[in-house]
Amino acid sequence: VSERVAVFAEGFLHTSNGKAAHGLIRYGEREVVAAVDSLHAGRTVVEIVPYAAKPVPIVATVAEAAALGAQCLAIGVAPAGGKLPPEWKQALLQALALGMHVEAGLHDELGRDADLVAAAAERGLELRDLRRVPDGLSTPSGAGLGVQARIVHTVGTDCAIGKMTVTLELTAAARAAGQRAVFVPTGQVGISIAGWGIAVDHVIADYISGAAERLVLDGAERGDLLLVEGQGAILHPLYSGVTLGLLHGCTPHALVLVHEAGADRIDLEDRGGPPGPVIPPLAELSELLLRLTSPLRPAPVVAIALSTRRISSDDEARTAIAQVESETGLTCDDPVRFGAERLWRAVESGLA
Amino acid sequence: VSERVAVFAEGFLHTSNGKAAHGLIRYGEREVVAAVDSLHAGRTVVEIVPYAAKPVPIVATVAEAAALGAQCLAIGVAPAGGKLPPEWKQALLQALALGMHVEAGLHDELGRDADLVAAAAERGLELRDLRRVPDGLSTPSGAGLGVQARIVHTVGTDCAIGKMTVTLELTAAARAAGQRAVFVPTGQVGISIAGWGIAVDHVIADYISGAAERLVLDGAERGDLLLVEGQGAILHPLYSGVTLGLLHGCTPHALVLVHEAGADRIDLEDRGGPPGPVIPPLAELSELLLRLTSPLRPAPVVAIALSTRRISSDDEARTAIAQVESETGLTCDDPVRFGAERLWRAVESGLA
Repeated sequence: VSERVAVFAEGFLHTSNGKAAHGLIRYGEREVVAAVDSLHAGRTVVEIVPYAAKPVPIVATVAEAAALGAQCLAIGVAPAGGKLPPEWKQALLQALALGMHVEAGLHDELGRDADLVAAAAERGLELRDLRRVPDGLSTPSGAGLGVQARIVHTVGTDCAIGKMTVTLELTAAARAAGQRAVFVPTGQVGISIAGWGIAVDHVIADYISGAAERLVLDGAERGDLLLVEGQGAILHPLYSGVTLGLLHGCTPHALVLVHEAGADRIDLEDRGGPPGPVIPPLAELSELLLRLTSPLRPAPVVAIALSTRRISSDDEARTAIAQVESETGLTCDDPVRFGAERLWRAVESGLA
Repeated sequence: VSERVAVFAEGFLHTSNGKAAHGLIRYGEREVVAAVDSLHAGRTVVEIVPYAAKPVPIVATVAEAAALGAQCLAIGVAPAGGKLPPEWKQALLQALALGMHVEAGLHDELGRDADLVAAAAERGLELRDLRRVPDGLSTPSGAGLGVQARIVHTVGTDCAIGKMTVTLELTAAARAAGQRAVFVPTGQVGISIAGWGIAVDHVIADYISGAAERLVLDGAERGDLLLVEGQGAILHPLYSGVTLGLLHGCTPHALVLVHEAGADRIDLEDRGGPPGPVIPPLAELSELLLRLTSPLRPAPVVAIALSTRRISSDDEARTAIAQVESETGLTCDDPVRFGAERLWRAVESGLA
């Protein structure tokens, strides 16, 4: 698609809730011509979020984004609960009035809002709900266990610490090494980047594992090494159900555990709650995951991806990585900072 | 409600898929005047399913159920996937034509089938979807951890082995012991029995834990000891996501582990699949559950409920129970066969 996109991240561009915007800018195949966030207007995205890696201009309004040539406004914020805040709706109506398609991955589907539907219809524009569930889902049949492809699944110690990024970087490294590797998107950002997938957190709860199995079957048509993006965290009090349903449903052969350097608790601060649950030692968590997968198909953690984004010096980042390696006995690296080749080699030998 | 009910279980009355029919007959407050299952027509339910405990006549057709005075046809089968088979639809249309309300807990909601909606509207009858999701659900806020009530949650080694029954029997025993005990329904059968609740397997996957928290908050308005019905099983390849989301979302103080005597694998046979995953030793499973709950609020397994329905002699049932006690060091009993008082006392001291 050659469409030009503006990402909407009003008030959240600098936070982990803005991860959809960050991912679209870093990995999306479409050109992102603007980010809308009045809090940071006048700067560029890479100044605020180094991860995004591109100097996309930040503007204060949807009208300014339209003036920069945006043909689609993509909501780049993933709020907890996936609701559409009333104040955003005005911005979306304005985008439609200015001739832009609107794209979102909210649980509150755009296509169920009568005002948005009417405004889009009037101008012949699209409302794209990336979390819309495909027809015909059900519980799994067991067919996922029978596919020829090797299946690697990223799991995390918390949300919003880079599971999708690690999955994308590992996919690229595996391809560079000659594998027919497929990134398997399980959430709205991955779907917007890859152009296919199912947001497994939006299906009927009974069908989480069935949706994951469907993704594995679809992925196996596209290649013979599947890298299935993880969701949530097994001990996360908000999202653990999705995490376990996905873990069992995608029937992985091996796991890559993603962790944020220095994090010792699950981060619930953006919910205004008390400090989140303690994250157990990584070796203990790996063993817990192995016990959960063993009855179906044992999936050992074969490598650890460490996000060192909060550590400024490369040397200190390397020290943090070495410490995880010595604690766990597994290869650890930060694929965003140091490249994913080394991590991929560890995954490859873990699969052998 | 003084409504007279017929349960529809065509071809499934004798199977665990017929558990909705069995539960409605055994625990429902409404009179069940007939069960529809042409396979067993002419006999009574208790002859086919001793658990049901009542000699409800089995008839071959909906018309015969109507002739016995049924005012509502309740679908008493919980098929995997929760789909509405086309051949059932004819029976439901017939029930409506004969003036009966129709009640079901399927994922395929009756209210979304245009033919059923039209037929019900024509006669002024109700289509009751027990799994319909209440408005305003989201992810949990953490408020569940703050309620004054003590929370007990039943978990199982498999599906359809009696978690709801154990929960109901424990609730009755706790009430008999003077507690303000509340059965908290989390599935369609429990909802049809208790008249409130949320089918947590039917909500958007991201909201499983939020739905469970809502149930705890609602339950705490009704009493100060909550017995939260479990769903699925933590190692079940179809339903584990719902199980873990419910486990974390209902923030229990203690767990009761429900097991079928002699079962060593999860039963996937009704899916036509290979033998299911091995069930680990109960002590190991209890420790796994404790590790999963510990970061949020540790929930030890304080008692084990053993279903001995497949053991004919009481002596052998007592031997099986004693064996579990010696293996696990926990009080074990079959509350259906021997009453729930002893199990309740173990739960009570586990909560102390």
